[in-house]
Amino acid sequence: MQGIFITFEGMDGGGKSTQLHLAAEALRSQGCQVITTREPGGTSLAEAVRRLVLDPDAPLTNTTQTLLFLAARSEHVNKIILPALKAGKIVLCDRFADSTFVYQGLANSCSPEHLEKLRQLNAFAAENLQPALTLLFDGSPEALLSRRNLRGVTDRFEKQGTDFQEKLRQGFLQLAQAEPDRIKIINAEPEQEAVFAQVMDCIRQIL
Amino acid sequence: MQGIFITFEGMDGGGKSTQLHLAAEALRSQGCQVITTREPGGTSLAEAVRRLVLDPDAPLTNTTQTLLFLAARSEHVNKIILPALKAGKIVLCDRFADSTFVYQGLANSCSPEHLEKLRQLNAFAAENLQPALTLLFDGSPEALLSRRNLRGVTDRFEKQGTDFQEKLRQGFLQLAQAEPDRIKIINAEPEQEAVFAQVMDCIRQIL
Repeated sequence: MQGIFITFEGMDGGGKSTQLHLAAEALRSQGCQVITTREPGGTSLAEAVRRLVLDPDAPLTNTTQTLLFLAARSEHVNKIILPALKAGKIVLCDRFADSTFVYQGLANSCSPEHLEKLRQLNAFAAENLQPALTLLFDGSPEALLSRRNLRGVTDRFEKQGTDFQEKLRQGFLQLAQAEPDRIKIINAEPEQEAVFAQVMDCIRQIL
Repeated sequence: MQGIFITFEGMDGGGKSTQLHLAAEALRSQGCQVITTREPGGTSLAEAVRRLVLDPDAPLTNTTQTLLFLAARSEHVNKIILPALKAGKIVLCDRFADSTFVYQGLANSCSPEHLEKLRQLNAFAAENLQPALTLLFDGSPEALLSRRNLRGVTDRFEKQGTDFQEKLRQGFLQLAQAEPDRIKIINAEPEQEAVFAQVMDCIRQIL
């Protein structure tokens, strides 16, 4: 049996990490073999990259950030995700190529040429791997801001304010519009249980 | 005045680092403003990448290595090389995009598609910056091996043996053949002074 690759995308504060772990538990209780992972992360190299990129005291250029994320992705895909999929597991991944495209591309007002390059780079780093399903956690920046504040504002992205959050939101929605079969929009504003019901609905449809 | 960007390329053991510093001294004694730098390196991020890639205990995939080198290059170009060139300086750089193309491409028997992708990635990371002059330090692997042995074999590339060194040599020579105006071949086998005379000849021709 071939595994299933599902990604959880969207702005911070949308509850995607929590929902990812709830979904993993639910699937495991149904007898599925599930691994959970996150980007940038999942390998020791990727964790090193994560520290470099998210350090607010060492600002990197946009291109450098992109290439570091892609290096981490390449390691993540080859050493964690592809082996798990080959073993028939369900892989739930917190952020993937769509985040690169939105954070380093669409939300940064890049030129169409730069976006096209980013698309090629994404495919190169991910060995052309595409998620079977992407859950996009969407909500107004104001609604999600209160959750972020509860967690404490800690990284560079979260310091960029609600204007940037709105650009991120529009970027993700643009991707969802372009690929409606793969990307399903989850309304992240209601209570946790109502969001979880939407998540499991989408996952059940591809199992 | 616009600066001049000169790169020093070739296998390890060819004496390029020594020659780079000799050339810098000679140019400074003639009143030129010179900075010397190296890849992967030159910034704190790049040094972190260098440690990650060259660690023989943590083997990375070829794609991951490439992307890390390119991240370091992007930072290096934007924060060190371009500002120096804009200030009218001569920049002498130990390794640059040609090394990526040879080490991660030609010497790894990559497909033509992969090589083409590598060429695009190189240009993306370097902001399309090309050296005005590239000095290729060439010699037989056997002749250069004795120098490497004097230094002690310490990193992953140097552990790959003379077969791989021969592939590297052929890769660099292939690039020199394709771009004879930019890439000048330096015979790295003679004594240091004779090599230095060739280096300064090439540099004088573009000053």
